[in-house]
Amino acid sequence: MSGVVIPLESGGQRARAGIEPLVELVGSDMKRVNQLILDKAGSEVEMIPEVARHLIDSGGKRLRPMLTIAAAQMCGYAGFNHILLAASVEFMHTATLLHDDVVDESDMRRGKQAARMLWGNQASVLVGDFLLGQAFRMMVDAGSMEALDVLSHAATVIAEGEVMQLSTAGNLETTEDEYLAVIRAKTAALFAAAAEVGPIIAESPKSTISAFRSYGANLGLAFQLIDDALDYGGSSAKLGKNTGDDFREGKVTLPVVLCYRRGTEAERTFWRDTLENGDTGDDRLAEAVRLIRHYDGLSDTVARARHYADIASDALAPMPAGAHKDALIEVLEFCLARAN
Amino acid sequence: MSGVVIPLESGGQRARAGIEPLVELVGSDMKRVNQLILDKAGSEVEMIPEVARHLIDSGGKRLRPMLTIAAAQMCGYAGFNHILLAASVEFMHTATLLHDDVVDESDMRRGKQAARMLWGNQASVLVGDFLLGQAFRMMVDAGSMEALDVLSHAATVIAEGEVMQLSTAGNLETTEDEYLAVIRAKTAALFAAAAEVGPIIAESPKSTISAFRSYGANLGLAFQLIDDALDYGGSSAKLGKNTGDDFREGKVTLPVVLCYRRGTEAERTFWRDTLENGDTGDDRLAEAVRLIRHYDGLSDTVARARHYADIASDALAPMPAGAHKDALIEVLEFCLARAN
Repeated sequence: MSGVVIPLESGGQRARAGIEPLVELVGSDMKRVNQLILDKAGSEVEMIPEVARHLIDSGGKRLRPMLTIAAAQMCGYAGFNHILLAASVEFMHTATLLHDDVVDESDMRRGKQAARMLWGNQASVLVGDFLLGQAFRMMVDAGSMEALDVLSHAATVIAEGEVMQLSTAGNLETTEDEYLAVIRAKTAALFAAAAEVGPIIAESPKSTISAFRSYGANLGLAFQLIDDALDYGGSSAKLGKNTGDDFREGKVTLPVVLCYRRGTEAERTFWRDTLENGDTGDDRLAEAVRLIRHYDGLSDTVARARHYADIASDALAPMPAGAHKDALIEVLEFCLARAN
Repeated sequence: MSGVVIPLESGGQRARAGIEPLVELVGSDMKRVNQLILDKAGSEVEMIPEVARHLIDSGGKRLRPMLTIAAAQMCGYAGFNHILLAASVEFMHTATLLHDDVVDESDMRRGKQAARMLWGNQASVLVGDFLLGQAFRMMVDAGSMEALDVLSHAATVIAEGEVMQLSTAGNLETTEDEYLAVIRAKTAALFAAAAEVGPIIAESPKSTISAFRSYGANLGLAFQLIDDALDYGGSSAKLGKNTGDDFREGKVTLPVVLCYRRGTEAERTFWRDTLENGDTGDDRLAEAVRLIRHYDGLSDTVARARHYADIASDALAPMPAGAHKDALIEVLEFCLARAN
């Protein structure tokens, strides 16, 4: 019923072309990352690899670790530590997904039953903890105190973002700034850290580290904005099986923030009845989508995403031209194209 | 109703005397640890300090960070990093408690309502994640890659132990060795790491590091064994308001492991009806306690605890005599005396 993450492919052929150059550049390193992920998800405690692999094998695109690899390559790094850090980043993300499912009481994740439905909330909490521990062990193996600093900071910020999201849930007075603070913490912080640790282990100059951090953070914002638009059908506003999760969970995302502010008093009552009081049946969802379209909630959310994608693109402008830079810029287009 | 951790004072006057020397030795450093704990539990996200302080203020004895401080002092360490690591250890423990309450579906913790009952499972999961992140940030601040290695390893082992415990729950075929593997991972690993990081930041020789690790691990085993005996009333087998939590949660702890093996077929049926099938009313608990006493389940659990306390004591034998060594040995007696 709910909780399905929209696969990155959903943008169709054009989107696939957008991420293809990056996938090719990082392909052979990502093979090493994927092998490491499988190794480090292992444990003599049987249930751990079962639960971990359920999620790991379910076909996320691994955009975050790809950022780490691409950034490290672009900065001329030639060791093994970027592999360790990329796998750490993916484990941090996977741990967050496992804990999110418990927090959101989701039934589905990436088109499969959520781990908590198969093994219980308990296993989701604990295997998440295990993966977080393994992430830190890999960071220790990578041996960079600066990378550890960046990633451990991201871990606390992500948790803060998730708690902030809890307190905005059902609160229609949430402002765009407050919404932005939530997604900056829960999503952009890890994208930023993932990109930043590449130049860090390459021992690049501070300006390069800042550039990648800014690229990652703004890509993360754009990514989450598009995700939140897709939850109401994207700019085409066709309702697919992946829509309506945020609506059912009472999440106040940007399309709603905009539409609530722009609406009539009667429409605001509708939003309170649904998102505050939980009356979120399918007919209510259809009405929500109609209202959001009427007030340009989706196209304006996509416009905001483009704004951050532009900042990300400009952040990389001082970097030397080449295939890596082109691929990272293409990823921004890929991200935006998902909403079409 | 359930989930109350037995306060360390419950051993009475004799026990209090047992921990008093340690408390005095580490007192002024622990003031710094407690201040740091309050600082690092802070966040602009309101709910985080609320939830964290609910648990932090609820009067745990902070035995684990005291071990770190005592070990560092005993090894002649004179900086600030032992304060950071002690606070990290306490945060790791607090995060585990928050997640445990969700996993065990506990209503109570340390005599207060569990955080999850007041703020929901969601806040317990996420604030636990936040504290874990803060723990790692403090480790990074302490700047010792070796301490980071030890503590991040402990984090994964604790999670493994908790998962192992899930799969032994309700399984009366659990052997003493399997039970021991669970408590070694879920409890002893953090005690071991807490003690070990003291000599590590003091840059003590390897043999000293091993001695403290062994002391901590074996103290942790003794501590958990006594905790598990207390859940059935301790060696006096008087049922207090703190007894029966493990029974109600279907946990197969050593008193049960011993009693199940030593009992008749009819008694084994009783255990299966209660711990496997969940028929755990108060009259059933009284019968469980009667059976455990009849088969010396509690006194033999305490005897096993003494065995590990002896190993812990011998681990410190090569260390120079003095107030610290005496205090750490006294802690072992304190721990055993709780069961009387």
